[in-house]
Amino acid sequence: MNLILLEKEESQICWKTEDSRTQHVRNVLGLGIGDCFFVGIRNGLIGKAQILEDGPEGIMMSMDLQWDSPSPLPVDLLIGLPRPQVARRLLREIPSLGPGNVTFFIADKSEPSYRQSKLWKTGEWEKLLQEGAEQAFSTFVPKIQHMESLTEAINGLEHGQGRIAFDLYETEGSFDISSVKEEKRLAMAFGPEGGWTSNERRLLRKGGFRLLALGPRVLRVETAIISALSLAASHLGRLDIPLVP
Amino acid sequence: MNLILLEKEESQICWKTEDSRTQHVRNVLGLGIGDCFFVGIRNGLIGKAQILEDGPEGIMMSMDLQWDSPSPLPVDLLIGLPRPQVARRLLREIPSLGPGNVTFFIADKSEPSYRQSKLWKTGEWEKLLQEGAEQAFSTFVPKIQHMESLTEAINGLEHGQGRIAFDLYETEGSFDISSVKEEKRLAMAFGPEGGWTSNERRLLRKGGFRLLALGPRVLRVETAIISALSLAASHLGRLDIPLVP
Repeated sequence: MNLILLEKEESQICWKTEDSRTQHVRNVLGLGIGDCFFVGIRNGLIGKAQILEDGPEGIMMSMDLQWDSPSPLPVDLLIGLPRPQVARRLLREIPSLGPGNVTFFIADKSEPSYRQSKLWKTGEWEKLLQEGAEQAFSTFVPKIQHMESLTEAINGLEHGQGRIAFDLYETEGSFDISSVKEEKRLAMAFGPEGGWTSNERRLLRKGGFRLLALGPRVLRVETAIISALSLAASHLGRLDIPLVP
Repeated sequence: MNLILLEKEESQICWKTEDSRTQHVRNVLGLGIGDCFFVGIRNGLIGKAQILEDGPEGIMMSMDLQWDSPSPLPVDLLIGLPRPQVARRLLREIPSLGPGNVTFFIADKSEPSYRQSKLWKTGEWEKLLQEGAEQAFSTFVPKIQHMESLTEAINGLEHGQGRIAFDLYETEGSFDISSVKEEKRLAMAFGPEGGWTSNERRLLRKGGFRLLALGPRVLRVETAIISALSLAASHLGRLDIPLVP
């Protein structure tokens, strides 16, 4: 991880020896008294922690917050609930691409029992998201929600939000810069691994979605999501230069 | 897989019962006499195979080739040799994004022993690439080569090819459409998981590379490669509408 995320700002932080973060700082980063490492406040600033004390009880640090984290893209994702192993990869990758809200919905071709996976039944999904943000050097953690159907997911969107669904089979054209012009906020919908059904395509069109493609080849769900978020950032003029503290 | 790749065109194809493709057609696709499935000729056309006979010896099919496969992008990749598990994911994903040539080089921060992995010592890498192309519904399989150093990899490029290296730390700007204008062919270089060294940045600049970023967050190597290939396809005007037979 490139920074360690904390829940809230404190002038001094203490982590006990058995805390996995203490072990990370000591054994992975190899740091001791006087050394610094990057920290961030969840959805807040990035800064440095400096180790003031290191003893058998744990470590104590001061914190100096200085930089804004990259801000999230004005993009929300709707994703047909995929297999847990695909969802795991997505949760780890998504924070590095900056979407705002991510809604997993039970699509016609989703397997509803995937919701019973320990990924979703335990805190595993939150841990993966947090690790993704820490790896991405970003404090922003996308909001995740679950919906029972595509209809419910569409009804949860804001009015006036640009709407694009990715589809290989009934596409109107490619996802290019003209697809997002004048949009302030974008919703992007992805079918599950088996794709959309005719019924879902009808619901999407009725809900104001354009069906677009991401090029001529068949992409895996996770590849399509990375590709679409990169293109959306570019088309929205949000591929900013990185923060380099 | 969405099509099955074959080495060469034949009017009739026979696969023995023990052939994994026969098992795929029978057990995964659940097909029998009279049924069709998609096939493609490596670096050639896409078409349909129809099952004419299905017996204890195997299956016999006719082949009817009809469609051009999506053509490769005029983009070559240079990738600092990553851990075998990352290389496996890349080999599976890369065919869906269409680069022409992919050169893995031993970067300053690569571990040269990764070349001794069974991934590279057996045919595993070729199998992953082929599966990637079959999944992507593309017959084009990128050419893979290995080089001993970044210098050797740079020397292997064509003259007059646009050159971009991705870097978070000494970036000139973001990878936008102006980065590729008037380029006929593009080389894109990615450091290994630990990033570039100062020496490599110097070699890249000397070799005509611009150092650019893919947005403000730190991306994993495989995410950066998917993102950069998607943006390159878009900037080069090559996000064509998919083939839908």
